[in-house]
Amino acid sequence: MPEMNRRLVLKTRPEGIPGPENFDLEQVEIGEPGAGEVLVRNVYLSVDPAQRGWVNAVANYSKPVGIGEVMRSFAVGEVVRSRDAALPEGSFVTGMLGWQDYAVASARALRRIDPAAAPISAHLGVLGINGISAYFGLLDVGRPKPGETVVVSTAAGAVGSCVGQIAKIGGCRAVGITGGAEKVGLCREVYGYDAAVDYKASGDLGAELRAACPNGIDVYFDNTGGAISDTVMGLINVRARIVVCGTAATARWDPAPTGPRIERSILVNRAHMQGFLLFDYFDRFDEATTPLAAWIRNGRLVYREDITDGIENAPAVLAGLYEGSNTGKALVRVRPDPTL
Amino acid sequence: MPEMNRRLVLKTRPEGIPGPENFDLEQVEIGEPGAGEVLVRNVYLSVDPAQRGWVNAVANYSKPVGIGEVMRSFAVGEVVRSRDAALPEGSFVTGMLGWQDYAVASARALRRIDPAAAPISAHLGVLGINGISAYFGLLDVGRPKPGETVVVSTAAGAVGSCVGQIAKIGGCRAVGITGGAEKVGLCREVYGYDAAVDYKASGDLGAELRAACPNGIDVYFDNTGGAISDTVMGLINVRARIVVCGTAATARWDPAPTGPRIERSILVNRAHMQGFLLFDYFDRFDEATTPLAAWIRNGRLVYREDITDGIENAPAVLAGLYEGSNTGKALVRVRPDPTL
Repeated sequence: MPEMNRRLVLKTRPEGIPGPENFDLEQVEIGEPGAGEVLVRNVYLSVDPAQRGWVNAVANYSKPVGIGEVMRSFAVGEVVRSRDAALPEGSFVTGMLGWQDYAVASARALRRIDPAAAPISAHLGVLGINGISAYFGLLDVGRPKPGETVVVSTAAGAVGSCVGQIAKIGGCRAVGITGGAEKVGLCREVYGYDAAVDYKASGDLGAELRAACPNGIDVYFDNTGGAISDTVMGLINVRARIVVCGTAATARWDPAPTGPRIERSILVNRAHMQGFLLFDYFDRFDEATTPLAAWIRNGRLVYREDITDGIENAPAVLAGLYEGSNTGKALVRVRPDPTL
Repeated sequence: MPEMNRRLVLKTRPEGIPGPENFDLEQVEIGEPGAGEVLVRNVYLSVDPAQRGWVNAVANYSKPVGIGEVMRSFAVGEVVRSRDAALPEGSFVTGMLGWQDYAVASARALRRIDPAAAPISAHLGVLGINGISAYFGLLDVGRPKPGETVVVSTAAGAVGSCVGQIAKIGGCRAVGITGGAEKVGLCREVYGYDAAVDYKASGDLGAELRAACPNGIDVYFDNTGGAISDTVMGLINVRARIVVCGTAATARWDPAPTGPRIERSILVNRAHMQGFLLFDYFDRFDEATTPLAAWIRNGRLVYREDITDGIENAPAVLAGLYEGSNTGKALVRVRPDPTL
């Protein structure tokens, strides 16, 4: 019996957080690349908070995944059959390859990666959407100046940990908000934050943040929204910049939950709040990956990965993102990494 | 008996909207200017929504008016005694002269105005903080491009009416939100809005706004916050800019009222929300007043004034601002205008 392609397809649209009940694991025949296409054998599948948006029927910044379609995701893999000279067999690539073993994709939609320069999995995290989001979100939208205080929510996460480190590289005071003693330890000891606050253990997050930010808050890189952000908004400085990168604290947006109105704080502080979406920066990825890779090589930028084996576990890993249990970039490994 | 200086001093701090009960009308002797100072006889006192913030004890963007102090306000008047060569007796000036008949002020804190170029009262409105706020708030923060749709709340007000007209001058579609048939008529017939929506009469503000903005909303010049803004935020386009210029819809901010959370809309639309405060632009006033005066002269920028006679009425006029009863820049005339 020939090898089959296992793939996770969307079965039902979740109300709120997607989980295993919303996906079916199918086995189908492996596809054949046409002209200009390649067949990629995936190694690592990415699991990202943004995937929640991709399975919502509500119009979002990208077309929703259809019922019965392969779950959209980034992945890295090896080209095993090629009909495009730019990507010969044996080359490694990353792109929107989906939650499946094998993907047929247009060569032009993929980015070739160099397995000698960095582990291939890094291209799904610190050299991929997480690190590049941190880079542009912080530097292009947040625009921190040396000496300013940068506060990061989900500070130990895949994006947040990069934000904190880039803030430090830029001469800022970096203060992390995270949940649990383990992550507080990671922030302080691994990612180099000047201070880290445990919002779960805190009896008074505002008081702890105030103590951690004696000069107030100039830049807030917001991955959560919700009550954490309400507290931060009470402590921002004049001309503060708020980078809205994620809303992990809110499970359902229909109807939108309520919270304290922020327009007065925005007005009085002449604060600048802006949404950040990586897709707007596709043309500029190299501008970020070059310095990011250099910082990795000189040890100023460290990263962690939470690797789960087995494609069948991807939906549970996705659901787990919203429980705050991960301590690094969430990956699913579908076969042994051939580069290690 | 010599003429006295009547002045309104802050008696108590309001909870919410300030009104007559918070002020005392005193009579004191007229002051004497020292070196570098002038004595100004006020003609028009300004009544502005921002004054609510100035009498709050809570730290705001300027030091609160103290109990027993003259109410802070802009005014225009005539120099009747001068100890500074730059402002001879008989010259007209504008500045923070307060709610009183006579003010002693440093000549350097005042701006001399030309009564031949425009009515002196215009310097408290369309050539003063209202028009200058509209100019910089819209053009510097909102950054509309020709063909874009600009929505303005309190569209018929002193600031809003300028915003709508500047948007039209810039080649945009201008849509006003206002309360009552009279103001809707003003928006459409006097201020040249392409459409105006009556939020008080509307059974479905969202549907009416959607109809008035067939291409969505690119710039929202927000003078109200509150439920009106919640509706607008549901209709913004990708890369929309929200200029937070006022929060007239909310009477009390302690504690902050709740409303639908906006972080998801900000994120998905990569919207840009920013607080605008005129005080940040003091060095650039001429940059605005030159084109504003030119537009007034060529008839592209029209304005209305609601003039109330009698200093004793100033607190009631201030309270009335929040009832939405005014249809133009609110002024209090304390003596006949000597230039008319």
